[in-house]
Amino acid sequence: MGIVVQKYGGSSVADAQGIKRVAKRIVATKKEGHDVVVVVSAMGDTTDELLDLANQVSPLPAARELDMLLTAGERISMAVLAMAITDLGQEARSFTGSQAGVITDAEHGRAKIIDVTPGRIVQAIADGAVAIVAGFQGVSQESKDITTLGRGGSDTTAVALATALGAEVCEIYSDVDGIFTADPRIVPNATHIPRLSYAETLEMAANGAKILHLRCVEYARRYNVPIHVRSSFSNKEGTWVVNPEEVNSMEAAIISGVAHDRSEAKITVVGVPDKIGEAAKIFTAIAEAKIDVDMIVQNVSAAATALTDISFTLSQTDGAAAVRVLTDLKDTVAYEQLIFNDAVGKVSLIGAGMRNSPGISARFFQALADAGINIDMISTSEIRISVVVAESQIDDAVRATHAAFDLGTDEVEAVVYGGTGR
Amino acid sequence: MGIVVQKYGGSSVADAQGIKRVAKRIVATKKEGHDVVVVVSAMGDTTDELLDLANQVSPLPAARELDMLLTAGERISMAVLAMAITDLGQEARSFTGSQAGVITDAEHGRAKIIDVTPGRIVQAIADGAVAIVAGFQGVSQESKDITTLGRGGSDTTAVALATALGAEVCEIYSDVDGIFTADPRIVPNATHIPRLSYAETLEMAANGAKILHLRCVEYARRYNVPIHVRSSFSNKEGTWVVNPEEVNSMEAAIISGVAHDRSEAKITVVGVPDKIGEAAKIFTAIAEAKIDVDMIVQNVSAAATALTDISFTLSQTDGAAAVRVLTDLKDTVAYEQLIFNDAVGKVSLIGAGMRNSPGISARFFQALADAGINIDMISTSEIRISVVVAESQIDDAVRATHAAFDLGTDEVEAVVYGGTGR
Repeated sequence: MGIVVQKYGGSSVADAQGIKRVAKRIVATKKEGHDVVVVVSAMGDTTDELLDLANQVSPLPAARELDMLLTAGERISMAVLAMAITDLGQEARSFTGSQAGVITDAEHGRAKIIDVTPGRIVQAIADGAVAIVAGFQGVSQESKDITTLGRGGSDTTAVALATALGAEVCEIYSDVDGIFTADPRIVPNATHIPRLSYAETLEMAANGAKILHLRCVEYARRYNVPIHVRSSFSNKEGTWVVNPEEVNSMEAAIISGVAHDRSEAKITVVGVPDKIGEAAKIFTAIAEAKIDVDMIVQNVSAAATALTDISFTLSQTDGAAAVRVLTDLKDTVAYEQLIFNDAVGKVSLIGAGMRNSPGISARFFQALADAGINIDMISTSEIRISVVVAESQIDDAVRATHAAFDLGTDEVEAVVYGGTGR
Repeated sequence: MGIVVQKYGGSSVADAQGIKRVAKRIVATKKEGHDVVVVVSAMGDTTDELLDLANQVSPLPAARELDMLLTAGERISMAVLAMAITDLGQEARSFTGSQAGVITDAEHGRAKIIDVTPGRIVQAIADGAVAIVAGFQGVSQESKDITTLGRGGSDTTAVALATALGAEVCEIYSDVDGIFTADPRIVPNATHIPRLSYAETLEMAANGAKILHLRCVEYARRYNVPIHVRSSFSNKEGTWVVNPEEVNSMEAAIISGVAHDRSEAKITVVGVPDKIGEAAKIFTAIAEAKIDVDMIVQNVSAAATALTDISFTLSQTDGAAAVRVLTDLKDTVAYEQLIFNDAVGKVSLIGAGMRNSPGISARFFQALADAGINIDMISTSEIRISVVVAESQIDDAVRATHAAFDLGTDEVEAVVYGGTGR
């Protein structure tokens, strides 16, 4: 049997009891005959506590030092997990990102993996040990400084290691049994999805389903690594994220599910002169401030005024920075007004089948209209339709959409649909 | 001006406020024109909390993993301290023991420094930055595993770095103004000692004065690094630990001070056959269990029985292990009985002058007798006389001795005499 990479999020290793439970699961996998490499996040709220401490000392902590600080979180969880495994009679060795050969660029706080040279991991599993690797962290190629990978970093570490080691599967553990057709906290009869293609999973992840992080799915798709999303609290099969041809066409529904995202904010630049290059100026300035933009909509210009409105969505946390950038830009782009709204959210309908099925968007919009929900912005891809609605109407929009496409089951899953930490 | 190495213990960086206070002191030293290298311990109780966590998961945590875990403590304090310094407008860079080039052997939990290759530290100070180094930790030469130096590790890191960098002084900060003739908590009029030789400081450290750790003083003596022991809470001059010729003979008293140690336990092996090699068997077995023995006393054998009693003292924490070792040895060394007593302590009179001053021990023992204190064991070196007494009588013994040798001042120092963490 081959190598299995298992990633456990912060909620799975929140305390000593959780760590012992995870240790048992790891040893069981090892006893089945697999070589096991484990990637672990920081315990529970550790990262938030460390951030608190940093903010007590400095309003804007130095980026290099913030990475040094935050990586203490995984150092603690991995060492304690290795102890718990050793205590069960199975040798385990923990490795920092640097020791595991996770080489990154030097962008502190959002470093990208350049290379993985897992020589010490290979040696550890050759020696019969379980290797425990700190997620979320690496070492920069040039400066040899400690870096962190930013949001979703531990998932990405796991997939990158699975790729470098030629693992047969990368198991991503959290506190839910996989991916559902909607968040079961909002839609109690949401259906569990047994298999999903990379593309649909990407759209789910990009549009607010917190179960897997975008970067990790992108990495897995590029290198064709099967991901098994499952719960560390049960032994149920989770959701397999695989190539489209491995998704049984008989069971593949037209619509995969409804995702939602409460973390969006919307900025409208009102009265932009309708001439070539103005939009480029706006989004170049935004990009230079390292702010990621999600949806962009430009209205058709009213010929009489030769002015246009440009709206875009972005993460709420980037809102203040974007407003600052655009205010500085007022002399260059002579727009009239800036409107910032962080009381918005995004609801997305995702399905590989929708491109060949006419009338999907009409049915989606009708369902929202019937529920009394006003659509603020619309954006589509080949396998997704997203709308921006008022934050207060997100839950209603998800329920209405889920019902309109008959995505529910008769059974109600008793799960908590939570985030994956980092 | 040259390089100053400053070491701050856990009590100096116990919280965000303490870290900011220490940051200001570091920046002030830098502004005076010195290159500053800082060695820092884990914040306050961090180490104990991490040990608690380890014990929740495993009764006997794997040594390699315990080192990985504990080193998270300094990682946190050094990163936060670097942030606080950067916030004051002075560049600071933190380095792990490994990054700072602290190369050790592979004895987890009690590693010894083999070499220091501080290339990155030299570069940082050449760039005008303050270098912050994690105390207590290193990396093993062969396995490249993370190691810890054991008790007093951070002090040792500081002195080792001061040696490798050719620093003009190694300042060891804690919460007291240096070394006193006795613990001021027991003897309120204890006298502050401005200068002390390495040898006397070694005896003080080895015999319970918690202000400096034995290993660090040994290292400093070997490489002739001046140590300045001082408080991070005041700007008073502390105690300089230097070569004997630099201790002004006019001010050098015959007796330096009275040290005490509450952490001792005593084991008596009763009825050991009085023949060649029996003591060797006992202490070989103890040494193989990596237990450090302090004082050893063997009574003259009563010829009639051809049996003898051997008593020795050791750290209370090693007591259970030593009893186990000796119980296993009963078949080999046919002794009669084992007596374990952890309600003992050691009081030591230290002074380079005592070797040329007759009557010191007589005066010492008389002072104890006058105070109604029974002496259990006696051990002497050229510059020290130690006695083992009942734990409940330690304070009385210290006070009686301090008074008998006129060591007190008229002023009472308002200080708290605490430990230095690690």
